[in-house]
Amino acid sequence: MSSQFGDLFRISTWGESHGGAVGVVVDGCPPGLRIATEEIQAELDRRRPGQSSIVTQRKESDTVQILSGIFEGVTTGTPISMMVMNENARSGDYDEMRTKYRPSHADFTYDQKYGVRDWRGGGRSSARETVGRVAAGAIAKILLREQFGVEILAWVETVQNLQANIDPAAVTREQIESNPVRCPDLEAATKMLAHIEEIRKQGNSIGGIICAVARNVPAGWGEPVFDRLEADLGKAILSLPACKGFEVGSGFGGTQLTGIEHNDEFQADADKNVTTKTNLSGGIQGGISNGMPIRIRAAFKPTATVMREQATVNTDHENTTLQGRGRHDPCVLPRAVPIVEAMIALVLADHALRQRALRG
Amino acid sequence: MSSQFGDLFRISTWGESHGGAVGVVVDGCPPGLRIATEEIQAELDRRRPGQSSIVTQRKESDTVQILSGIFEGVTTGTPISMMVMNENARSGDYDEMRTKYRPSHADFTYDQKYGVRDWRGGGRSSARETVGRVAAGAIAKILLREQFGVEILAWVETVQNLQANIDPAAVTREQIESNPVRCPDLEAATKMLAHIEEIRKQGNSIGGIICAVARNVPAGWGEPVFDRLEADLGKAILSLPACKGFEVGSGFGGTQLTGIEHNDEFQADADKNVTTKTNLSGGIQGGISNGMPIRIRAAFKPTATVMREQATVNTDHENTTLQGRGRHDPCVLPRAVPIVEAMIALVLADHALRQRALRG
Amino acid sequence: MSSQFGDLFRISTWGESHGGAVGVVVDGCPPGLRIATEEIQAELDRRRPGQSSIVTQRKESDTVQILSGIFEGVTTGTPISMMVMNENARSGDYDEMRTKYRPSHADFTYDQKYGVRDWRGGGRSSARETVGRVAAGAIAKILLREQFGVEILAWVETVQNLQANIDPAAVTREQIESNPVRCPDLEAATKMLAHIEEIRKQGNSIGGIICAVARNVPAGWGEPVFDRLEADLGKAILSLPACKGFEVGSGFGGTQLTGIEHNDEFQADADKNVTTKTNLSGGIQGGISNGMPIRIRAAFKPTATVMREQATVNTDHENTTLQGRGRHDPCVLPRAVPIVEAMIALVLADHALRQRALRG
Amino acid sequence: MSSQFGDLFRISTWGESHGGAVGVVVDGCPPGLRIATEEIQAELDRRRPGQSSIVTQRKESDTVQILSGIFEGVTTGTPISMMVMNENARSGDYDEMRTKYRPSHADFTYDQKYGVRDWRGGGRSSARETVGRVAAGAIAKILLREQFGVEILAWVETVQNLQANIDPAAVTREQIESNPVRCPDLEAATKMLAHIEEIRKQGNSIGGIICAVARNVPAGWGEPVFDRLEADLGKAILSLPACKGFEVGSGFGGTQLTGIEHNDEFQADADKNVTTKTNLSGGIQGGISNGMPIRIRAAFKPTATVMREQATVNTDHENTTLQGRGRHDPCVLPRAVPIVEAMIALVLADHALRQRALRG
Repeated sequence: MSSQFGDLFRISTWGESHGGAVGVVVDGCPPGLRIATEEIQAELDRRRPGQSSIVTQRKESDTVQILSGIFEGVTTGTPISMMVMNENARSGDYDEMRTKYRPSHADFTYDQKYGVRDWRGGGRSSARETVGRVAAGAIAKILLREQFGVEILAWVETVQNLQANIDPAAVTREQIESNPVRCPDLEAATKMLAHIEEIRKQGNSIGGIICAVARNVPAGWGEPVFDRLEADLGKAILSLPACKGFEVGSGFGGTQLTGIEHNDEFQADADKNVTTKTNLSGGIQGGISNGMPIRIRAAFKPTATVMREQATVNTDHENTTLQGRGRHDPCVLPRAVPIVEAMIALVLADHALRQRALRG
Repeated sequence: MSSQFGDLFRISTWGESHGGAVGVVVDGCPPGLRIATEEIQAELDRRRPGQSSIVTQRKESDTVQILSGIFEGVTTGTPISMMVMNENARSGDYDEMRTKYRPSHADFTYDQKYGVRDWRGGGRSSARETVGRVAAGAIAKILLREQFGVEILAWVETVQNLQANIDPAAVTREQIESNPVRCPDLEAATKMLAHIEEIRKQGNSIGGIICAVARNVPAGWGEPVFDRLEADLGKAILSLPACKGFEVGSGFGGTQLTGIEHNDEFQADADKNVTTKTNLSGGIQGGISNGMPIRIRAAFKPTATVMREQATVNTDHENTTLQGRGRHDPCVLPRAVPIVEAMIALVLADHALRQRALRG
Repeated sequence: MSSQFGDLFRISTWGESHGGAVGVVVDGCPPGLRIATEEIQAELDRRRPGQSSIVTQRKESDTVQILSGIFEGVTTGTPISMMVMNENARSGDYDEMRTKYRPSHADFTYDQKYGVRDWRGGGRSSARETVGRVAAGAIAKILLREQFGVEILAWVETVQNLQANIDPAAVTREQIESNPVRCPDLEAATKMLAHIEEIRKQGNSIGGIICAVARNVPAGWGEPVFDRLEADLGKAILSLPACKGFEVGSGFGGTQLTGIEHNDEFQADADKNVTTKTNLSGGIQGGISNGMPIRIRAAFKPTATVMREQATVNTDHENTTLQGRGRHDPCVLPRAVPIVEAMIALVLADHALRQRALRG
Repeated sequence: MSSQFGDLFRISTWGESHGGAVGVVVDGCPPGLRIATEEIQAELDRRRPGQSSIVTQRKESDTVQILSGIFEGVTTGTPISMMVMNENARSGDYDEMRTKYRPSHADFTYDQKYGVRDWRGGGRSSARETVGRVAAGAIAKILLREQFGVEILAWVETVQNLQANIDPAAVTREQIESNPVRCPDLEAATKMLAHIEEIRKQGNSIGGIICAVARNVPAGWGEPVFDRLEADLGKAILSLPACKGFEVGSGFGGTQLTGIEHNDEFQADADKNVTTKTNLSGGIQGGISNGMPIRIRAAFKPTATVMREQATVNTDHENTTLQGRGRHDPCVLPRAVPIVEAMIALVLADHALRQRALRG
């Protein structure tokens, strides 16, 4: 289904940008897991509007309400329903969008698909839908950490043509959160921050690349054939608004190498622990984790909303122009970091349970 | 499930490289569709080993048997079961693989996942599994062509650092099939052919990039949120052996542009047909097709099997070496072209039916 | 998933009896359907506690809040989230249940399954969960009525040994709703009412049989093999609390007949409309509707909560006794009638969309 | 999907009565399970035509071929593909059915659903489809026995009005298989045998009731809400050809009792093992197994094919008559016994894995 994700650890998100609320139902979460509401809230705060000068200045407290599935602080195995009220909906900003399609937004395609559309703030196509993903992802992260020892980190690697220099093996959450860009290379982060500010002032927008790593994933998660770990991760990340590309391990760059250069030779230590000398595979071979860090990269296009007049058509399919308005992110990447982590966590939690079903 | 793909047009593949046969069951294919067995066979012939000098020289006729679901040449709406016998299984080539893990193959991860493994020729992890995808994809293509007018084409765009120059809007099936590389730029194809031959002689391997386009997809296919068309296409392509990256529209390159440069402005003609002036979106906006050609790119790593001695570990997790043997493709791309097309067809057939369920 | 139902028209219910709220998310509802909140509320009022003297006297207004998916009174095709607050939760009634398992309830099995349990009022196992089914079923009913002309009616046929005499072909909603038992045979209803009152005074409980019919279902809905219409209807009804049996058409009684007696001969009228002379098939043949009324029956056991001391065990697995307390229905059937209708509507809405996917 | 069953232990059946073969693909079977082909064949032999004088005299050896997923006698965790060739297809018996709809068969509904139909021997609607269920069920039985100690038995309890007297707690496989009726009460079996022979000579048919028990199912399998164990069992059994009713535990008869009579009081022994004094619940409470034997009953209507002339309509929707022909079972129950067992095994295997996913 369109608004559901996952097989055993399954989430259903709901809600429009300017409706009463947005939310998520998590079905299949194992019982007995201790959940601190603060931990969920902390993840939501990382994606919240208004958290810094380089993100949208909409004011939303995004306070999570847990309505079911957690009793005396512990998951009961029944559906966990979480909700966040919509507070700062200024639909007036969108009056013109009622009859004009914003370029590179989903207004036109929603009308083509459904014949009807909640035009306020993008409705269901708004990135506000990701609130539910992040809340559910926070629970998936707790499950992965407490029962499997897995850690997931994402960060901003490039902003337009500004490239950070980061060692994926060494990067920490603290480094990532040390600046509003969420780029752990402070020198690059400073340049990125200035560039985003400049682009914002121009009424323009930019994109970039997010990198992520999942550490301590045991060998054996994932599936052969269609539900390969990289395929499910790819789907998860490509389902995010503005994402246009996905790589695992060597990715597109790997096509420049020969097989002899690209292969990851195995090695065993004295305790018979098997690792690979290189990790161009990105921790996944044949669709299944091999115990090495899982590494992925995702390309995010520049935000579609720009403060310019653009050519477009109206709902009667006549040519017209539209002036961009509203409060938007000049660059989605800093706020996309926790969302990328959430999606990875949802995929890994699902595969953790699938593997447990298979072998106990 | 691991070996199933699709929601309404759903396929289940089965079979190991050196078992009795490989096959696929297609469930959910609409009734009344005329299917010529020759058309399915033609697609299988495009992925068949031994079709040219630059692919593996294993001899398999790969003749499809249709066992159910087609009566008097027409689909009945019941499951279509198709099977291809395994003919040229030389398991002897694999004796050493029984106890040694091939680098960058799935031998090690299968053992970690399942605790047991059909070591002959990669078993289930062999690309031979894609026979079922191609047979099912042939039926999806017929459905898409006959009921919706959709055409799908894939081709080789780069081989290692050799880049073709191709206009996606103009490329034809005939151009693609005009040479064994399946690159419609004949000048580039000639260079690629020579390079693959050279690499083969070295016992090495190379990868590259496949590009694909789906034409005449009506606006309105796809879903918002998780089952976005690009997310489902990404999962489909990333589930192919050796695929390490996926892009839609502007992809990673799009991160170099600003929003003003990247946006696809709408325009209407006198008949109120809406198109976009550019197509950086790749035919998909908000997860839903907008009527423009759908454009994707996929990165395939160099084949893991190389004719060299490599360091590895054995099933007792002791260090050892392994000499590559067997008949393998020095470059998977020419044979991957029909497989990429098949996966795109499976995704689009599924979404065509999903949209029909929604609106009739 | 445990808390999800349906394939294309899919619902996810959530919530515990004494948590903050109960609710449902409907995914896959076609766009453009006009929904009056009053119509959903009217169905919830039919299952509401306190509606008559023979049902539980808990006070819950059960007012539905629609949080997403409906814009300007019309479905948008996106998930419809509906919620009902829990108002009259007297957890004190359940203190003893914290450590003692109620006989024939789900307390023991939940602890065995999950190792943790929200013991307040049955938690997730409470029939309060059916609020979400009824709200979602109301939307399914509107879809079926507006787009397909289908009407669904359920009624009480027996209460313990009291049997009503009803012609399924003629029964109307008005007759069913004419009395608090929801038995359209007024003479039988009067006896049933008196019997339920008497049983209630004794602190005892009783069960009975609900009959239902779906009219104007077109021929061709349903599926062969596993998702037969009777199989999906059976699952839907058997998933209701207290349901112990399900029949379609002739049911168990049909085993007394010979094939010659049981077969439904076909007949065509002058307009080539095909009907069957009898309808022992219950409107379904080979898992697919044949255009005749679909007829089913469901057995509901007596309510497990009785105002008696019963032998049981505690959470330490020691023998003890438990005195029944709280406000409960002496007979669930009157309130189960709208729930049975809702489940039938959910199944038929799903199959309506599945058939549309197949043939347009 | 119509031809798929199960969530984690999932089967896909395919094939028509008079096509080349029938088969099944089992996906999700845990690895490392030792499978003797003879054990699968033994179950197929129990459902095979021609095994005794009271079943259809079609000659089919029904020899199973295992095409994938089992290597050196052990499951590998990959899809298990099994196939049985169709040998004794006398399509000539069905010529008249090409244009005339057999009463109470699926000919008419298939045409209404699909607009096309393999008219030979019922095509996909033939009970021959159950070959795949039985083969897959044999593997599920081995999984349940080897990893969980579960035993499943079904038997014939009534044939039309002839009732056996059987203690479900004591019945054994040997007693069931001691006679061709598969009724463990030998006195009743003798009468049933004579009655079926008599009915067969008359060219008529009869039905009856099958009873089944699953022993040693641990407490905690099953799910609350929609996928209750009784709901999934009900769907499984009601998906069988000719099944018109399903009961769990007290079933329809339980509606005659009061709550005080119906409740199953708990008791603990000195080792803190919890059982219930009675088992009207049928081993399931709140949708979840409670450790007591699971008991179900299923009603099968008389076979639709009778050797009589009956009124019907043709494919042009004109009134006509049809004379029953062909080789059919006068009573499906003896051959349905292994099929019922198979369906129960498939449901329990699936829930065993689901519970393992949840708690390890």
